[in-house]
Amino acid sequence: MTSSSIIMAHGSGGRLSNMLINELFFPAFNNPVLNQAHDGALLTMECNQLAFSTDSFVVNPYFFPGGNIGDLAVNGTVNDIAMCGAVPKFLSAAFILEEGLPINDLKEIVNSMAAAAQAAQVKIVTGDTKVVERGCGDGIFINTSGIGIINHQQKISPENAQVGDVVITNGYIGDHGIAILSQREGLSFETTIQSDTAALHTLVATILNASANVHLLRDPTRGGLASTLNEIAQASQIEIRLQESAIPIRDSVQAACNLLGLDPLIIANEGKLITIVPQVDAGAVLQAMQQHPLGKESAIIGQVLDRNVGKVTLETTIGSLRMVEMPLGEQLPRIC
Amino acid sequence: MTSSSIIMAHGSGGRLSNMLINELFFPAFNNPVLNQAHDGALLTMECNQLAFSTDSFVVNPYFFPGGNIGDLAVNGTVNDIAMCGAVPKFLSAAFILEEGLPINDLKEIVNSMAAAAQAAQVKIVTGDTKVVERGCGDGIFINTSGIGIINHQQKISPENAQVGDVVITNGYIGDHGIAILSQREGLSFETTIQSDTAALHTLVATILNASANVHLLRDPTRGGLASTLNEIAQASQIEIRLQESAIPIRDSVQAACNLLGLDPLIIANEGKLITIVPQVDAGAVLQAMQQHPLGKESAIIGQVLDRNVGKVTLETTIGSLRMVEMPLGEQLPRIC
Repeated sequence: MTSSSIIMAHGSGGRLSNMLINELFFPAFNNPVLNQAHDGALLTMECNQLAFSTDSFVVNPYFFPGGNIGDLAVNGTVNDIAMCGAVPKFLSAAFILEEGLPINDLKEIVNSMAAAAQAAQVKIVTGDTKVVERGCGDGIFINTSGIGIINHQQKISPENAQVGDVVITNGYIGDHGIAILSQREGLSFETTIQSDTAALHTLVATILNASANVHLLRDPTRGGLASTLNEIAQASQIEIRLQESAIPIRDSVQAACNLLGLDPLIIANEGKLITIVPQVDAGAVLQAMQQHPLGKESAIIGQVLDRNVGKVTLETTIGSLRMVEMPLGEQLPRIC
Repeated sequence: MTSSSIIMAHGSGGRLSNMLINELFFPAFNNPVLNQAHDGALLTMECNQLAFSTDSFVVNPYFFPGGNIGDLAVNGTVNDIAMCGAVPKFLSAAFILEEGLPINDLKEIVNSMAAAAQAAQVKIVTGDTKVVERGCGDGIFINTSGIGIINHQQKISPENAQVGDVVITNGYIGDHGIAILSQREGLSFETTIQSDTAALHTLVATILNASANVHLLRDPTRGGLASTLNEIAQASQIEIRLQESAIPIRDSVQAACNLLGLDPLIIANEGKLITIVPQVDAGAVLQAMQQHPLGKESAIIGQVLDRNVGKVTLETTIGSLRMVEMPLGEQLPRIC
């Protein structure tokens, strides 16, 4: 490519657009469907139940400890598909680039996307690139949309948490949000806190294999555990009661939260899920999750009650009970 | 909604995000799949051939004569799906909002999307909203991705233009680009030139009904006819020869192009397609197109030759022959 940074003509639909496509996107995402170069991708798939999801990523900064906007964008949509109980198959990738973005940054991001897609066994099959003038964007925004196949009969839904069920997570919460915040604010802690960005679909497969009655899967991203569990409590019209002592939080993340006055329950995660299963299956699900590479620190963190319908409560380490509110606004903007 | 413009908290995943979703998006896009409020949409569809496409829209200004970024975003992805020869079924909608965007503008845009989706008989089934700080975006960017079903056996592909084929378009070219440009630059002509934004999938169905051997469908958006036809000429390794006198251009658009020194062949369209069919079917296809509301001014504009392989040529009104080049760069940025 002749320029070292993105110029308006890269979004023109003309020769420079084609160079970007042919010299960067096609080689990185290389697969037969993408290479058809059609207005869209033609997919052959035997199915009758699909999951379809979309997410735009505007994380700032776009490089951060443990990842970048590229692998985040792939893993984020893979996870949304997986939380529907589906096996992710195909992704789209749409870029909004700001004039002046270094092409080397774009290359690194695109290569991370390609690596994340390969790791998650999904294909990036169609895409789009737009360029906006300097000052009308912020480096790079990426939208990924995805299609997955549902090949089981379990009813997984935000409305399906049932009294007596058990709430399980796959490990330490708050890593992603604190990693971004540290990078953005130039904070340094004793250890570098890394984003937990990861594709969770094989962990979901493990869970679906361990129980035939998984009631709920969700990834607590923006708004953290507090938002996700409040949404579930409202949708299912139940109470979720958490045990503070059972929630896995790294000492470094807890220390950063104390320093910054943040509640770890509202910090974003990008490699965590919560699943809600009948109590009778909880042991088997927990054990299976702990044997998965992304579930070693899995823990039962709470249960589903019928007392404070639509609410989330927390039994603290000192034995008191407090409400966990849906956060009103934005403690940490541009986290994903 | 308590605020008259978008604030960062609308993208937080917290209560204000939920208000936007529950008070604006859900009522506008109302359908049972969306209302599941899952991480993604669960779709039941019997099929084995799908089309999947994505497009981000950054058009500036976001309101323009004949439409706005909302109906443009719906029609654009509907058309990309249709150009694959598929029937569009489901769309996603992902918003990147700039802090300070008037909520009334967002409402008008969302209502236009809902109306366009209803007109095109597609459902908006899943979505996402992000907010960026003032100065890090430009009012509103929208990504739509779409899924369509292919229910015929025709081989429609950019590589499938064949020597002897005929090139047909469904009407006046250049309207969209000139409408945007006039609005942006505050130019006024004798008549207001309106964007041609429209959903073309029923016109595509008409074409597929009129010929069992449709070789190619494409919508000449960014980069106009010149880009689209050059891409086809290269992919199919043929020459496309256009007849200048046959290309439908409004007097007002031609006059604006003359004034601005622009070639109408590179101006973007949002409600036009070109189809390439065997000569033997051309009459039937043209007649069928002319009876469709979006095809009244359909015309045969050129043919496929084997002389200047990979090139597009134009026989001018004075009988000379000129090359139609792929535009290098950006004559009209942020056109879609």
